[in-house]
Amino acid sequence: MNKLKVCIVGSCGHSGSVISGIAENRDSQSLAAYSGDEEDRLEGLRGKLSDAGLEAPYYQDLEAMFDSVKPDICVVDNLFHKHAKTAIAALSRGIPVYCEKPLALDLASLEEVKAAQAKSGVLLWAMQAARYYPWFYTAYKLIKRGVIGEVRLVNGQKSYRLGKRPSHYHKRETYGGTIPWVAIHAIDTVLMMADKPVLSVYAIQSRLQNRDHGELEMSGQIIMQLKDEVCTGVNFDFLRPSTAIIHGDDRVRVAGTEGVLEVRDNRIFLINSDGEAEIPAEESPGIWGAFVEAYSGKDALISTESSINSTRIALLARESADRGTIVYA
Amino acid sequence: MNKLKVCIVGSCGHSGSVISGIAENRDSQSLAAYSGDEEDRLEGLRGKLSDAGLEAPYYQDLEAMFDSVKPDICVVDNLFHKHAKTAIAALSRGIPVYCEKPLALDLASLEEVKAAQAKSGVLLWAMQAARYYPWFYTAYKLIKRGVIGEVRLVNGQKSYRLGKRPSHYHKRETYGGTIPWVAIHAIDTVLMMADKPVLSVYAIQSRLQNRDHGELEMSGQIIMQLKDEVCTGVNFDFLRPSTAIIHGDDRVRVAGTEGVLEVRDNRIFLINSDGEAEIPAEESPGIWGAFVEAYSGKDALISTESSINSTRIALLARESADRGTIVYA
Repeated sequence: MNKLKVCIVGSCGHSGSVISGIAENRDSQSLAAYSGDEEDRLEGLRGKLSDAGLEAPYYQDLEAMFDSVKPDICVVDNLFHKHAKTAIAALSRGIPVYCEKPLALDLASLEEVKAAQAKSGVLLWAMQAARYYPWFYTAYKLIKRGVIGEVRLVNGQKSYRLGKRPSHYHKRETYGGTIPWVAIHAIDTVLMMADKPVLSVYAIQSRLQNRDHGELEMSGQIIMQLKDEVCTGVNFDFLRPSTAIIHGDDRVRVAGTEGVLEVRDNRIFLINSDGEAEIPAEESPGIWGAFVEAYSGKDALISTESSINSTRIALLARESADRGTIVYA
Repeated sequence: MNKLKVCIVGSCGHSGSVISGIAENRDSQSLAAYSGDEEDRLEGLRGKLSDAGLEAPYYQDLEAMFDSVKPDICVVDNLFHKHAKTAIAALSRGIPVYCEKPLALDLASLEEVKAAQAKSGVLLWAMQAARYYPWFYTAYKLIKRGVIGEVRLVNGQKSYRLGKRPSHYHKRETYGGTIPWVAIHAIDTVLMMADKPVLSVYAIQSRLQNRDHGELEMSGQIIMQLKDEVCTGVNFDFLRPSTAIIHGDDRVRVAGTEGVLEVRDNRIFLINSDGEAEIPAEESPGIWGAFVEAYSGKDALISTESSINSTRIALLARESADRGTIVYA
């Protein structure tokens, strides 16, 4: 079997997990090349490659890389406002794309990404890695097994440390906003657990107290009304103190007709007719492993549709917060 | 000193705490009389009085009771749709009122209550008992001491067991709705912690899967936009399984510029520049004790204004959910 040829564009987000994935699967995967501008954190990328003992040629020009390397998969992880354009370039050549979220920073670009994917029919995933965190992965399976009956109410949380963010976080044009960058994780987790279409979304947000981060939003709330009157909410913030041991405080609480299941502190808590219990997390293949399996046709917890949908709902939520109106999906 | 003469109307909510309060303070408080119709759970009230070793005359007619007993305080705890009318009757005579929440089931009645209170100037409290639960009480004090800096984001939760509720819960007309009956607790806790005026409110709710409880709503989400862009949210449900040891699962999470404080499982968790810690709860006077002190002019965590405000916001949230629109406060 030929090795899977992967190319990576930039290193602004979570492409590091791809590098470690390739390093651990050298018999079946290879890094074929990398690309991007220096501003896409190429220095960081080179450091990670070196740490992983991987070598690959660099192409400044994306198209030249595609022509020369003919990759099986393109990993998109350059500056956020370039995701859509880069994903479209790969999809247009029929190259499956594994893209840092959000897929696009505006709805028009997202439509173009969607059209390029539809035309080629190849796999497109946003890096919604939380779906494969063992705790969320296990929680999802438990819900699908019916341990809490029919899902009626879901709340998600994403709380980050702010630290000192580079300048592209300071401008909406290059950052996209805290809803599509941070809250999108909780939006995606909530939608995974509820597994119903969104009918409308309402959100509020604030830039106050953002410690000289320009247009970056620090906090906010989102309500998503789903089909069948499933009521969902998300709260997000950059207010987690720097003293916190873990970077993020990701949570989801799912209340159903037969019980309540909750993920908190990377632990799973269930209460139903059997009583209250903490459930150990199952092993998960991790998102990159799952993507490679999906590339080979296996079922997965992320799909092209779920990736486009979460991006779209996040952009609609941002629109709601910007305009102060309810937005219908 | 003369004993404080208390009369009680009905026993549909939390007047039990008044009875135990009087029983524990027989030297300074006395039950002067009780009133209400049989449907206001008088049988339950008589049982509680008997258990506490208290005796008092019964008056079917409220006005006759006021004329005869001239109470210092009137406790209103009859069927929910009678709260407003009963409170107005007492306030109009200049009798301070300690009223089960919500103060009224519609905005017009609330305005009448407000007017009657304004005219007499006497104390009017809604039984927002959570403000004096030791964990919320302590959390509030910590926030006021500045342990998390400026409050920016608050989320509250109220999750109840449904069980089998009497018929007055089945109709909006007598029940008022799950937002003014259940979610109002979390609304009030959030507003206590944030301590800012509400500018707008948006809510969604669902009656589905309410196990033959007529019009009773089972679940929902609320967003309240406060002054200074403080973003707040509430989730509420009747989905807590009957196996849960504790009736309610009340929570609040307050994120500020310098830390995050959370109340969960009646415990207080703080993370700020000093690190992460669980904070022991201080002793609280309890809501009845605080009310009696406020009657004598002492400062308190509940006021006539906070009582009216939480009721009003809950009714606006219900209106938002009923109409599917944002409501401006």
